[in-house]
Amino acid sequence: MPDARRHRRLAILAEGHLNHNDAKTAVGILRYSDDRVVAVIDRTNAGRDVAAIVGEVAGRGVPIVADVGEALAYGPDTLLIGIAPVGGRLPAAWRAQLFAAIDAGLDVVSGLHMFLEDDAELVASARQRGVRLWDVRKPAPHFAQRIRQDLSHRPGSHVIYFAGTDCNVGKMTAAVELDRAARRRGHSSTFVATGQTGILIAGDGVPADRVISDFLPGAVERAVVPAAHQADWIWVEGQGSLLHPAYSAVTLGLLHGAAPDAQILCHEAGRTAIRHYERRAIPPLSQVQGIYEQAAAWLKPAPVVAVVLNTRLLSEDEARAAVAAAAAETGLPVDDPVRFGAERLLETVTSAVERLG
Amino acid sequence: MPDARRHRRLAILAEGHLNHNDAKTAVGILRYSDDRVVAVIDRTNAGRDVAAIVGEVAGRGVPIVADVGEALAYGPDTLLIGIAPVGGRLPAAWRAQLFAAIDAGLDVVSGLHMFLEDDAELVASARQRGVRLWDVRKPAPHFAQRIRQDLSHRPGSHVIYFAGTDCNVGKMTAAVELDRAARRRGHSSTFVATGQTGILIAGDGVPADRVISDFLPGAVERAVVPAAHQADWIWVEGQGSLLHPAYSAVTLGLLHGAAPDAQILCHEAGRTAIRHYERRAIPPLSQVQGIYEQAAAWLKPAPVVAVVLNTRLLSEDEARAAVAAAAAETGLPVDDPVRFGAERLLETVTSAVERLG
Repeated sequence: MPDARRHRRLAILAEGHLNHNDAKTAVGILRYSDDRVVAVIDRTNAGRDVAAIVGEVAGRGVPIVADVGEALAYGPDTLLIGIAPVGGRLPAAWRAQLFAAIDAGLDVVSGLHMFLEDDAELVASARQRGVRLWDVRKPAPHFAQRIRQDLSHRPGSHVIYFAGTDCNVGKMTAAVELDRAARRRGHSSTFVATGQTGILIAGDGVPADRVISDFLPGAVERAVVPAAHQADWIWVEGQGSLLHPAYSAVTLGLLHGAAPDAQILCHEAGRTAIRHYERRAIPPLSQVQGIYEQAAAWLKPAPVVAVVLNTRLLSEDEARAAVAAAAAETGLPVDDPVRFGAERLLETVTSAVERLG
Repeated sequence: MPDARRHRRLAILAEGHLNHNDAKTAVGILRYSDDRVVAVIDRTNAGRDVAAIVGEVAGRGVPIVADVGEALAYGPDTLLIGIAPVGGRLPAAWRAQLFAAIDAGLDVVSGLHMFLEDDAELVASARQRGVRLWDVRKPAPHFAQRIRQDLSHRPGSHVIYFAGTDCNVGKMTAAVELDRAARRRGHSSTFVATGQTGILIAGDGVPADRVISDFLPGAVERAVVPAAHQADWIWVEGQGSLLHPAYSAVTLGLLHGAAPDAQILCHEAGRTAIRHYERRAIPPLSQVQGIYEQAAAWLKPAPVVAVVLNTRLLSEDEARAAVAAAAAETGLPVDDPVRFGAERLLETVTSAVERLG
């Protein structure tokens, strides 16, 4: 069902998870997708406006409704399961909503670890009603079981990996912002998506955390090498963190599979520990920088050339102070492309990467 | 079908791959399994003795035959697909052999990425004949989709991870040898298998490279934490190498999932580059040691306390010289437990780990 050309009209199912920490799929789609969000389903916030809950300008005027039945008034053609719970399973209570959507003729898109395609009742319903199911996290066949071959990238291409101090700090956002800024500047540029929200936005990509571990670097290589053949600037969405107690293997598979020329380190200002693993303090940025540079260099050197600081929780003054402090600590250029625009960061990064040769 | 108590009579299918580089499953089973190998199937070497081909004492008197039909004369009750080709797919020409085995009433055990269970014709045949199929590489349900929780190990337990410079250098062998030596000494000791041969020997384990990358560290934790609850010494088989262009993510998932207290670095004497990736030179052992210690320390420090040198390709004199050279380079105790016995290495390792506190 992936079809980047079609502009969907989405109802996003976010039941009980519509806050900024959990709603990264909804926010990502609102900001960056060609699809239009016509309603968000969350019984606990029904009657309110999406912008009021997630603090996202793009959510203005998008109604929150109680269930699929109410969402139908806004003319959706697709139901998107718009949360990414730990473990990725489909809450049992949501299945009724899925059947209601299918009965109403909506396609269903899911980023869960549990595949809709493996649910015989859903599949039978969808077939009977003539609607489509898209499991965004299911690796496409050419990504599913491929061993990495250690291929080189086209000379002249620049592959940039977005490293993170943690999950959900803004790696995808930074990558999309830089890709768009590069295209606006007339660069040959592409974004390589590696998570469900990125794949929904780009219409294609590697669902990295769902690939069998033996094949993860091979899948990423299969995405990045052709991208570097076609474009000069390749912005590869990162996942997790090398410091993450649960997801470090996903991160390393992406880093080594992408074999970047340079990295951008992403962090959320004010976050002091790994989310859901509070006893795991996040070390100083300069130390995290060293860790990513070491790990990359086991196969190919890839210096960190900039820090992206997500300052969404700070005031404007606090944000400027945090940027200055991070710059002083790391000696690197630091910016927040969402708050301050991506143009200056793009200029900084492209200059630094071109100096690498 | 996993059943560690039953002693099988194995015919091992190794068609065209019966040499020491590819036959690590056959050699591992011959050396360490309670199962008895009654014949090996390899048309290219039929009529010879297994020991003559793989240079393994335990292969003496085991006949090499041309096909399943010939193997039946030696009374097997199980056919084991005994190679691990890159990518793990079942060569099409072998399917006929599998059907012949099933028709003859043999169970079939496979370590391939492609599951026998997903082959409807094989499944139907096996059901009809009343024999069992065991996909060793299929993660058990409790290992399949579990996020790592960052649990601590029982105080007093010692978890040792076997790090490698490359695949197929002797990590599993070293782990099994040390576990057996520890038990002989009366220690409370267990071996945690993470690859198909180890799982065949142990009857249980985590098929690490087949686990979805999001869940790899969680699966390993699910194996190691209970092991550390029950035993004082836990020897965790490693996979791949942090330096491997295709498998580094599997290695890091194992290392962080196991959260060891110490590591043993395994290397094959004379190997200078990553197998199948010859432009990737293996750095000096002291540098590899540093890499594993850095990566472990991102979550929990785990010093390398010894080097295991696989000297199978060397003469006795050369082996002693190689051990001395590696000891001089690293400043660590170095030994080959297969060649020189595991007792001295066990003493060295247990003393060093107990000094860590």
